[in-house]
Amino acid sequence: MEIQKIEQQFLELNKKMMNYNEAISVMYWDLRTGAPKNGAEQRSNVISQLSAEVFAMSTSSEMNDYLTKLENVIGTGVLSDVTEKSVKECRKDYNLNVKIPPEEYREFVKLTALSESAWEEAKAEANFEKFQPFIEKIVEAKKKFIEYWGYNDKKYDTLLDLYEPGMTTKKLDEVFKKVREELVPLVAAIAKTGKSLQGDFLFKPLEIQRQKRICEDILTQLGYNFDSGRLDESVHPFQITLNPGDVRVTTKYIEDNFMSALFGTIHECGHALYEQNISTKLIGTPLCGGSSMGIHESQSLFFENIVGRSKEFWTNQFAVLKDNAGDYLENVTFEEFYESVNHSEPSLIRIEADELTYPLHIMVRYEIEKELFDGSLEVKDLPRVWNQKMEEYLGITPSNDAEGVLQDVHWSGGDFGYFPSYALGAMYSAQFKNTLVKEMPSYEELLEQGQIEPIVNWLTKNIHQHGRLKTPSEILVDVTGEELNVTHFINYLTDKYTSLYKL
Amino acid sequence: MEIQKIEQQFLELNKKMMNYNEAISVMYWDLRTGAPKNGAEQRSNVISQLSAEVFAMSTSSEMNDYLTKLENVIGTGVLSDVTEKSVKECRKDYNLNVKIPPEEYREFVKLTALSESAWEEAKAEANFEKFQPFIEKIVEAKKKFIEYWGYNDKKYDTLLDLYEPGMTTKKLDEVFKKVREELVPLVAAIAKTGKSLQGDFLFKPLEIQRQKRICEDILTQLGYNFDSGRLDESVHPFQITLNPGDVRVTTKYIEDNFMSALFGTIHECGHALYEQNISTKLIGTPLCGGSSMGIHESQSLFFENIVGRSKEFWTNQFAVLKDNAGDYLENVTFEEFYESVNHSEPSLIRIEADELTYPLHIMVRYEIEKELFDGSLEVKDLPRVWNQKMEEYLGITPSNDAEGVLQDVHWSGGDFGYFPSYALGAMYSAQFKNTLVKEMPSYEELLEQGQIEPIVNWLTKNIHQHGRLKTPSEILVDVTGEELNVTHFINYLTDKYTSLYKL
Repeated sequence: MEIQKIEQQFLELNKKMMNYNEAISVMYWDLRTGAPKNGAEQRSNVISQLSAEVFAMSTSSEMNDYLTKLENVIGTGVLSDVTEKSVKECRKDYNLNVKIPPEEYREFVKLTALSESAWEEAKAEANFEKFQPFIEKIVEAKKKFIEYWGYNDKKYDTLLDLYEPGMTTKKLDEVFKKVREELVPLVAAIAKTGKSLQGDFLFKPLEIQRQKRICEDILTQLGYNFDSGRLDESVHPFQITLNPGDVRVTTKYIEDNFMSALFGTIHECGHALYEQNISTKLIGTPLCGGSSMGIHESQSLFFENIVGRSKEFWTNQFAVLKDNAGDYLENVTFEEFYESVNHSEPSLIRIEADELTYPLHIMVRYEIEKELFDGSLEVKDLPRVWNQKMEEYLGITPSNDAEGVLQDVHWSGGDFGYFPSYALGAMYSAQFKNTLVKEMPSYEELLEQGQIEPIVNWLTKNIHQHGRLKTPSEILVDVTGEELNVTHFINYLTDKYTSLYKL
Repeated sequence: MEIQKIEQQFLELNKKMMNYNEAISVMYWDLRTGAPKNGAEQRSNVISQLSAEVFAMSTSSEMNDYLTKLENVIGTGVLSDVTEKSVKECRKDYNLNVKIPPEEYREFVKLTALSESAWEEAKAEANFEKFQPFIEKIVEAKKKFIEYWGYNDKKYDTLLDLYEPGMTTKKLDEVFKKVREELVPLVAAIAKTGKSLQGDFLFKPLEIQRQKRICEDILTQLGYNFDSGRLDESVHPFQITLNPGDVRVTTKYIEDNFMSALFGTIHECGHALYEQNISTKLIGTPLCGGSSMGIHESQSLFFENIVGRSKEFWTNQFAVLKDNAGDYLENVTFEEFYESVNHSEPSLIRIEADELTYPLHIMVRYEIEKELFDGSLEVKDLPRVWNQKMEEYLGITPSNDAEGVLQDVHWSGGDFGYFPSYALGAMYSAQFKNTLVKEMPSYEELLEQGQIEPIVNWLTKNIHQHGRLKTPSEILVDVTGEELNVTHFINYLTDKYTSLYKL
């Protein structure tokens, strides 16, 4: 058969897989945004059924056949760039998946669906024991998967590589050490001032209906397209892409913590802008997504922190917010607001942590995951070790597991190796900003005028549109001219917090 | 292979099909309850992909093989009742589906998904022309399907039979004639009194948030289980079953027409109670649904009209409603409320029509559908003919197509032959009520005390639990001792409206 015919069939198979994945994503979104509990178990049957079908397609002899034939002509100019890179993605998936027996994979997917419901209940009751049997099974399954996949130095590296290609425990240990060496003295210096920038208004109640409207407005202001998405409520905020014309975000509203919903929304908006701006030529291919979890997170953190907590952004937006928030910001000055949303202090909940202490939350999880997978830590000891590490890194101890080890959804989905991406994202985002400001000298002025569009366009041109056509490292080098350089991150934080706390 | 093994494989295949159907239903629900418009076209690809897979399974040689082997032993006591009736259902489907080329079916499903979005837009703009090309294609496709399926006397009978097995144009013409002969003089007699029972409060604004809460309360009061369902908003109210633990309802809130949302909700609640109470032994089989559209509608209309518009029900609920509805019912007496919700007057919108004039709305649609399929009417003439018939049967003419021919979602989904079920449902419901009151002499007293549970239990025992294990006619005869007898319906309406209007 001629190669163009094979290319076409390969792309058709990919489209079919993407269609199944979209159905699965709709069901996940539904389960997390208010599906009734009595239907959840049967729903997990449906998800596991369809996931098994996708799994079967990705590991089919048909797929292997296409890949083998297309691999023969890679680099000869016969195939488009999109096809060549799709082939590489599919081969990676094929190799990962073909080693896992289908029935085991199917069971695993079902387990994670049930596990998420269990986690929701366990968290609501602050009862780790309810979650423990699920997480034990998930860790066991993941270990078995790693055995199937193979590993070099450390089992955990295989998981890291899934989310951030090329990342290893060795590299992360180094990077985290360097960041820790700089951040710990900075955090200490702030503590020494005895200053709190936290305004009383932060925990003033603001009715949910108003919070909702403001979050919708801010999404629009940042360039989120509501004709290609919607905003809902869930236990843990998330962004999910059903297709490029349907990129959804959720947030969580707490009456007396509006900033949590607001910055949660801005964070997910960053993810969503990435997904809404991926080139339409990638639709239906495995390249229609973020380059890596770290690069994805760089976009959410860029909007949450670098834009969303900047003086410049609020120069324009503060008056609007004040108008829309009833008496919530009564008697609050611009300066108080800016300082309050940048207040830094060790806290218990990662997603509510400030950008300075945030990396320390990641390190707690990173150390725990490393130890779970090298066998030096058992699941039953998670709550104890979590609390220990929190004390060690942040100097505080959760009073219960809901605000401790049960706070994140990730482990219930089997997403180990994912957390480091959050810290990498923060580092990438500072590096991108450093280049953006050089290339767009009017950056601060634009923000002050509420003109976000040129900034989103820059990100789209340099990052978003490419989807998975480029690796994280290619993006970094193409955009900033260098590989990951944590100096930018450290400088950004040092400048910002030195000025804020007048150190 | 031994027959038990085949039975098991047959049931497994059914489970798989039900799983796919659940995924499709989640996506339909999603599309109708706020999915962003830019994702709709790609979503329709997903729905058509999965629908094509279900279609392929239902028409597979594997399915035919199971059916043939199992049919050989039907009636010999080897198979369970559930399996025997599942075999019959699947054979019926097989015969219907195998005659349609898969590609044509796939295109049809895609067409209906796009068509629904087009209908929503056309209705919003009261612009029939936007919808016309879609409905033309749908009618053409359906005619082609009927050719594939075959038909006896009239093409349209084949469609009627899909929703109400055994129903024909001949029978319906007779039944509708008889009902019309009795209702027209009754409607005329009411008009002659010159009385209007309509209280001013009916169109007083009531904030959506309150409407929502009251609708939730009334669902609970009627026995709807929120752990197995949820209430959402959509352009047209509907009930959808994802699985028996997830039976959803929607309604439409209009600020100055609360009764529309309230009775819409009660109507869908009737459907939902049916689905929530189907025996769990039918899960995963094709019997896990209503016996027919007419029987289904008998349950929604039983709750909407026979319970929901009865003096007895509001004896208990009126005070509760008054408390929850702010000043909406200020100065409204129980008697005024009861009369207002039973006010009868020809009106434009079917779902807002009173129970007396409702069957006339059905007759408009029935006549149009008949003529579309016998070729005596073209799609482009629909708006004109619709308006003519409305004038002829109800004495009123819509001022635009949004309140005329575009008001219902059904045709956009290709559901021709469905509307008569609504009228049949009303007739069945009166017949069921006649028996219920005989068997449960305390019926009125229970309603007055707000004790709905024994009534739902009676319906569950006699109707709900059986799902599709019984045909409509079997249910009628088993429960009421006779086939459809429209006298009960005519007597019910005559008694009620004679008393209301003191004729």
